[in-house]
This record gives sequence, C-alpha cells and structure tokens, in this order.
Amino acid sequence: MRMRNKPWAMDFLNEHGHIVDTDSSYAGNIQGFFPSKQSIHMEIGTGMGSFIIEMAKRNPGINYVGIELDKNVLIRVVEKVKEQELDNIKLVLLDARKLEEYFGEEEVERIYLNFSDPWPKNRHEKRRLTHEGFLDGYRKIMHREGYVEFKTDNRNLFEFSLRSMNNYGMAFEEVILDLHADEPPENIRTEYENKFSAQGNKIYRLKASF
Amino acid sequence: MRMRNKPWAMDFLNEHGHIVDTDSSYAGNIQGFFPSKQSIHMEIGTGMGSFIIEMAKRNPGINYVGIELDKNVLIRVVEKVKEQELDNIKLVLLDARKLEEYFGEEEVERIYLNFSDPWPKNRHEKRRLTHEGFLDGYRKIMHREGYVEFKTDNRNLFEFSLRSMNNYGMAFEEVILDLHADEPPENIRTEYENKFSAQGNKIYRLKASF
Ligand SMILES: C[S@@+](CC[C@H](N)C(=O)[O-])C[C@H]1O[C@@H](n2cnc3c(N)ncnc32)[C@H](O)[C@@H]1O
Ligand SMILES: C[S@@+](CC[C@H](N)C(=O)[O-])C[C@H]1O[C@@H](n2cnc3c(N)ncnc32)[C@H](O)[C@@H]1O
Repeated sequence: MRMRNKPWAMDFLNEHGHIVDTDSSYAGNIQGFFPSKQSIHMEIGTGMGSFIIEMAKRNPGINYVGIELDKNVLIRVVEKVKEQELDNIKLVLLDARKLEEYFGEEEVERIYLNFSDPWPKNRHEKRRLTHEGFLDGYRKIMHREGYVEFKTDNRNLFEFSLRSMNNYGMAFEEVILDLHADEPPENIRTEYENKFSAQGNKIYRLKASF
Repeated sequence: MRMRNKPWAMDFLNEHGHIVDTDSSYAGNIQGFFPSKQSIHMEIGTGMGSFIIEMAKRNPGINYVGIELDKNVLIRVVEKVKEQELDNIKLVLLDARKLEEYFGEEEVERIYLNFSDPWPKNRHEKRRLTHEGFLDGYRKIMHREGYVEFKTDNRNLFEFSLRSMNNYGMAFEEVILDLHADEPPENIRTEYENKFSAQGNKIYRLKASF
C-alpha cells in the first residue's frame, strides 16, 4: 500500500488525537485511550481500515487498535472512524517492530495480520510480519488465551508463515487453504482480499496461539 | 484404490515370497529380506507402486519397503518389481496400524505418504494416516534424522494434516502448496498425482520430522 505523500498528513493526524496516537502518548496505557476497559484486539498494517472498522462495528464489547506505520494511509482510516463515530477503535502510528515498547505483557487478546507485505526476496525475510523476530514481540504482549489470525493470498508468504510459526512452537487452531470456497459468515473481507480474490487467487487463513 | 477381488491373489503373493512378505516373516528383521544392509525408506499405501519402484531404480543405495494392505493391489506391484529385477525393494502386506509390531525402533529413515485415503467424514478422522494415532507409530520406528514426506491434492486432508502434525510437535522442514507450479526435478509423480493434477488440482507437499 503506497499512498502519495501528503505534506499535511502529520498535522491532520495530530488534530485527531482522540482517534490516533502519533507520539506514543498511550504507550503502557492503551486502555486509557478508550471510554471503557474491554479486551484488546489489534490489526497490524490496517491499510485503508475497512476490516478493523467493520470488526469494531460488529463487536462493540471489544476495543480495537489499528497499528499502521504509514501516515498517508492512516489519514484515510481516521476519516472513516470519525465519520462512523465509533469509540471502540483507536489507531496508533507505529512500526510493528516497536510493539513491545508500546504494549504491556499479555495485554492483547488477538492479533490480526491481513495481507501483510510479502517481501518475496530471501534476503528480506526478516521483514515479513510472521518472521520469528516479530513473533517474539507478539508472544510477549499476547494474552495466554489469545491467538494470531493471519490471512493472505500470497502462496510463498503462507508457506513461509506455516513453517515459521510451526518452528516457533505455536499451536495451529485452524488452517484453511481456500477461505472463499466455503466462506464463513463471520469473515470480513479486507480491501486486498477483495482485490486478489477477484483476480482468482485463493485466500489462505491460519489461526495460531503461543 | 479398489481392485476387483482375485481369489488367487494370496497364492500368487505366497509364490513370490522373495519379493513380498505376507505373514510377517521378516518382522524384526527387515534388513534380512534384502541382499545388503542399507537405509530403509518406506511408502505406506503403495497403490500400483510406480512411485516406490521409480525411487528404487534411482537410488540403488537405499532399501525400499512398500506397505500395502490390499492384496489385490499388491499383486500389480509384485509383477512390476519382478519384471524390473530390482533387489532393493520389498513389499509387505500389512496394515499401517501394525507398523510398530513389524519394525524396530529408529529403523526407518523416511516415510512417504502419497495421496492417502482422505476419509472426509469427521467421525472417520482417526483413519487418516496423518492422525496422531498413526503418528505415534511413525515416531517409534523413525530414525532421529528421518522425516515424513506427505503429498496430496486433497485440501481438507492437507489442512487436517498440517494441524495434526504441528500439534503433535513435529517440525516442518518444507511446506509447498502448489508442487507442480515449479516442480522440483527430483519429484516422482504417483498414479494419483498424475490423475488429479490432470484434473487441475493443486498438489500439496509437507516434510516434517519428529
Ligand atoms: C499490503 S497492505 C494490506 C492492508 C490491509 N490489511 C488489507 O488487507 O487490505 C499492508 C499494510 O501494512 C503496513 N505495514 C507494513 N509493515 C508494517 C509494520 N512493520 N508496522 C505497521 N504497519 C506495517 C503497510 O503500510 C500497509 O498499509
Ligand atoms: C488412494 S491410494 C494412493 C496410491 C498411491 N500412493 C498413489 O499415490 O498413487 C491409497 C492406498 O493406500 C492403501 N492403504 C490405505 N490404508 C492403509 C493402511 N492402513 N495400511 C496400508 N495401506 C493402506 C490403500 O489400499 C490404497 O492402495
């Protein structure tokens, strides 16, 4: 997801400090960002945000946190959250590499990874969000009953992720190799999911716990 | 693989006792069945046997054991082994449930499962050759550096097997979700593999160790 650089992006985000945290003001106190203390579910790499916004609408009893490192992308999510007047979704301008600095131990009950950047070159595998370096971070902030839910259409990334999470010792709760063949009614499609599915790609899904 | 019942099947097999063991004569002494002591690789459910016969041809330094419980199917494999005059492949009429009684601890260095019966109904899942009940048996007879290599085109069986082997604690050495997209030159296609691939099905492959 590459968006044109908008010189005013940072100013816009800062004007919406009740929706998005740009300077880690809520690090160590994410519940303080929400009107009520509820389970925290998180998406890493929200893109345009339609998935996490729909999740927040359907599940008012859960606090959703969207992590995104691109401020030009985040603008669009902030606009939508504002429009919908949702108070159980907050956004954080953050690199997933820094999750451990922001969240406390066992604070997060679910982590969604949707159509994460595939980084196809072997020499870039450490950048994949399912690489063990990232799994270390997820493990630390994950609640003991929580799990990671990962969707992608990218075959090589999914093969890599199955191996990576297996070798890390994670338990597989679910493996689906063609999600749309018999689409579960609770599935919410992301922007990328719609786009790649329309191109005829199969969608893979994995749920795994530590 | 269902073959018409041949009343003479058992007699035929018994006449070829130098190729096939029908009454567990070599239980506890599989190396004694071969002219030279070499690593044991095994296929469970050989079907018509073209895979294991081609493997035996290509790798004279390995002793191949084909396990098959259907005597009507096994006839065909015996005929082919005889024709080719291969001495590094032997067949055993055996139910995979009884592997532990037949083989010694750590005796087998590789187990091939090719296009195993999918047993699609949930209530039959214990019959799938990747169910933990079978994994227990494989673990006991498997050499510490050995691994299971599993191929199938059956999506549900592969999803089940990924979960089953992962949750058993097996380590994934390789996961391939479309083997023929970039077919490794060492791949030997089985009868079922050719048939299902021609129908447009994707072929999955998993290598996993204990
Ligand atoms: C390919 S897009 C997918 C967007 C959306 N999840 C979907 O399925 O439509 C990946 C997104 O992840 C973001 N991203 C990539 N690496 C990240 C990281 N280390 N931390 C936070 N966000 C990241 C990118 O900026 C991009 O918006
Ligand atoms: C679907 S066929 C596949 C044949 C061959 N591997 C191929 O890929 O073309 C499965 C074979 O496994 C055999 N089989 C099924 N369960 C078995 C068991 N418990 N022990 C030994 N063989 C078994 C069946 O008799 C059948 O020949």
